[in-house]
Amino acid sequence: MSAYDDLMAFTKTTTALGQVAGRLGWDQETMMPRGAAEQRAEEMAAMEEVLHARRVDVRVGAWLDEIEDASLDDVGQAQMRHVRKSYARTMKVPADLAAEIAKVTSRSQGLWAQARADEDVAAFVPVLEEVVALKRQEGQALAEGGDVYDAMIDDYEPEMTAAELGAMFDAMRPRLVALRSGALAAEAPVALTGTFPEGAQMKLTRELARAFGYDSKHGRVDKAVHPFSSGSGLDVRITTRTAEHDPFNCFYSTIHEVGHAAYEQGIDRDYLLTPLGQGVSMGVHESQSRIYENQIGRSEAFTGWLFGQMKDVFGDFGVADADAFYKTVNGVHQGYIRTEADEVQYNLHIMLRFDLERALMAGDLAVGDLEAAWNDRFEADFGYAVDKPSNGCLQDVHWSLGLFGYFPTYSLGNVYAGCLNESLRRAVPDLDAQLAAGDTSVATAWLRENLQRHGGLRTPLDTIRHASGIEPTSEPLLTYLETKFGALYGL
Amino acid sequence: MSAYDDLMAFTKTTTALGQVAGRLGWDQETMMPRGAAEQRAEEMAAMEEVLHARRVDVRVGAWLDEIEDASLDDVGQAQMRHVRKSYARTMKVPADLAAEIAKVTSRSQGLWAQARADEDVAAFVPVLEEVVALKRQEGQALAEGGDVYDAMIDDYEPEMTAAELGAMFDAMRPRLVALRSGALAAEAPVALTGTFPEGAQMKLTRELARAFGYDSKHGRVDKAVHPFSSGSGLDVRITTRTAEHDPFNCFYSTIHEVGHAAYEQGIDRDYLLTPLGQGVSMGVHESQSRIYENQIGRSEAFTGWLFGQMKDVFGDFGVADADAFYKTVNGVHQGYIRTEADEVQYNLHIMLRFDLERALMAGDLAVGDLEAAWNDRFEADFGYAVDKPSNGCLQDVHWSLGLFGYFPTYSLGNVYAGCLNESLRRAVPDLDAQLAAGDTSVATAWLRENLQRHGGLRTPLDTIRHASGIEPTSEPLLTYLETKFGALYGL
Repeated sequence: MSAYDDLMAFTKTTTALGQVAGRLGWDQETMMPRGAAEQRAEEMAAMEEVLHARRVDVRVGAWLDEIEDASLDDVGQAQMRHVRKSYARTMKVPADLAAEIAKVTSRSQGLWAQARADEDVAAFVPVLEEVVALKRQEGQALAEGGDVYDAMIDDYEPEMTAAELGAMFDAMRPRLVALRSGALAAEAPVALTGTFPEGAQMKLTRELARAFGYDSKHGRVDKAVHPFSSGSGLDVRITTRTAEHDPFNCFYSTIHEVGHAAYEQGIDRDYLLTPLGQGVSMGVHESQSRIYENQIGRSEAFTGWLFGQMKDVFGDFGVADADAFYKTVNGVHQGYIRTEADEVQYNLHIMLRFDLERALMAGDLAVGDLEAAWNDRFEADFGYAVDKPSNGCLQDVHWSLGLFGYFPTYSLGNVYAGCLNESLRRAVPDLDAQLAAGDTSVATAWLRENLQRHGGLRTPLDTIRHASGIEPTSEPLLTYLETKFGALYGL
Repeated sequence: MSAYDDLMAFTKTTTALGQVAGRLGWDQETMMPRGAAEQRAEEMAAMEEVLHARRVDVRVGAWLDEIEDASLDDVGQAQMRHVRKSYARTMKVPADLAAEIAKVTSRSQGLWAQARADEDVAAFVPVLEEVVALKRQEGQALAEGGDVYDAMIDDYEPEMTAAELGAMFDAMRPRLVALRSGALAAEAPVALTGTFPEGAQMKLTRELARAFGYDSKHGRVDKAVHPFSSGSGLDVRITTRTAEHDPFNCFYSTIHEVGHAAYEQGIDRDYLLTPLGQGVSMGVHESQSRIYENQIGRSEAFTGWLFGQMKDVFGDFGVADADAFYKTVNGVHQGYIRTEADEVQYNLHIMLRFDLERALMAGDLAVGDLEAAWNDRFEADFGYAVDKPSNGCLQDVHWSLGLFGYFPTYSLGNVYAGCLNESLRRAVPDLDAQLAAGDTSVATAWLRENLQRHGGLRTPLDTIRHASGIEPTSEPLLTYLETKFGALYGL
């Protein structure tokens, strides 16, 4: 066995253990008996202890020292790029700092949930100050003199910097604000009426998953409080949720998660349980969930088909025809909550968080001033005031978990989805005719062939470049949004 | 931290990882997508690698050298008894032998399943010869000059020997053979007619689980091909199965597994994720499942209540009254399959396997002669000939997995259940009045207080002695069976 083979065998075991830990997380959200939480915490901690020990195992460093990447083929070099990056990242952060972050964020998450329930920002500020201080320490260790926030972004989106993201977002914002203002001033779409039985929603949502190419032989669909996709390779499970008066929540959560799952399910089997065998970055991952959900799932052609399906299942629900239905699905409404936002306003939510967390990490914004900064910025971008903290700076779990640098990847995913959609439409000119029949197979096959199957073979940007054939910019997304919502709202 | 504290902390993590591995097994039988098997094998192997490394960790030996058991309290001494035994056992078996056994039994299980499907014993003989040879090697390593089969029994039932079991079984056999002959010569019970919808079976089976004290806050009930109980402490899950024409299969599988689960759920919380925090032996475990299933669940009083429940749910099913139902539940029929056998004939199945595997391990029986030996013995004990290998020596998975020494613990569990039942009846004279109302709570509380809650605190025999207050013998079981089936069949 060569050092490369030894390292890959070691990595395979570590990856398999990571899959086990991930499935424990899935179980916790779907199957776990409610009284098992205390024991589960011990089980998760035990898995984390094992995984951490393997990440810092000195043998990994020795193997890496021995391996000459230049002597490997393209795939081998890509594998080593991931292992070297991950090992270097782990070794830069002192073990006691990593342990302290784990401890504090665990406590912080509970305090955040309580503060949100109590509408009490002050109760959350002290522990968030601790989290921010610890994450800045970690960022400094990772940055080695470079930008702290860039180092954090690198955890989720290698190659990307705050400066690039900031420039892109700043250029996008005025056009999105104009679009949202126009849409909100125009006539509102028809609202759904009636109730939508949960059993029927789940039945149709399983059909939607199938329609979008979800492979049930290598996954399963369950209900959970929060929709998510979990696992890589041959076992990629998704969850969705149902609300009796809002079937779109269920259907578009499912399609979104199917996008994530299709990426993981679609990666070449040769990469199973290797560093290349999972989505390459959060932004690229989100590009898949977004293009499934929005550019395909909320298209006029596909919603026409969905309207027929829903009529068959639910009878009359207050929407007269496919045209009205298309507008209802794509309704732009005033709202405070990121996860409920439409395609236009969603990105404004992200930009707000990006600028605030960037300022927090730079030390330009104190945690104690966060609420005021949030509320000022929200009113400036959205045109009305935040009414309570759970609709404002306490709405997202991310910061309580120390996930700084994560938010911008959501909008980056939208930008990438815009690029991919433009190329997909060029490659498949009659796509709408297929989508109008509920057939997404040509679209999903195109994404699989050009992007999904390559997993982590290329860098994130090169993954998008390779798949779309263009240099990624926000222009395709903005053009798509302005065309679509301009037509919908007569702007 | 003392060496004891260090060791207990290390053991807690190992135990937690063992729970995770066990839950993967549960997932595999209940939830896993059908295409995930290849990846799951890698995940299980990864967990096994981690667990094995912890079992042979040199720090465990160093801690054990440092700890003076005499300085610990009773609980601490009991904890150390388990850790020392387990560590010594692991260290006695060479790593390459353990790996070879794992490899061969994995292959063997597949070959057994195929041979059983093909009714082809000869196809299974060569690999079983390998398994027997390897397990004898392991037994020799464990026995250190003592009896090989005793060393194997010790894995499942500490303190017990083949000589003791053989003497007990030999004394039981004539009385059981006489009982089965008498019952089979008498009038057969009424058979169930009609179908029993699976949904209704699952609903009633959940009520039965609740009636027997299964704690759904710390567990869940799902369907699987084979009923089993999985996990310890705060997360103990059971499975059951349904057959449209045989609701007893579902109901009594459930009650049986609830017995196992109640033991694990009932152990004192102080022992959570410690060596004392699980059932002390297979025999004691089986005593719980058997007394729940048989002495309580198949009693005249309880079946009277169950008859009413089934009438409410299923309407008429061809059984006129509770008396006839009691006899139907306890029907003694000709049959080849151990897992389908009644209380009387079940033990004859075990004794057959015990004697054959004892002879295999002693080298007195060649694998090539196993089928003939099985068939001869079966005809002698059961009175009719085996018609095909799947009804004979290929019916059980155990030997293909190298589980020698496991079978006798099933009958030992019945013997222990007999002892416990005698003491329970003495302690709760009006038990039948409660069971007749479907209330098992006094019985299950007695078992919890006297046996279950102590987990591994005492040795298996001392566990039964402490709970029953008597020296364990087969007499209570035999008297119980002769009284019950004598009355049922007018013997």
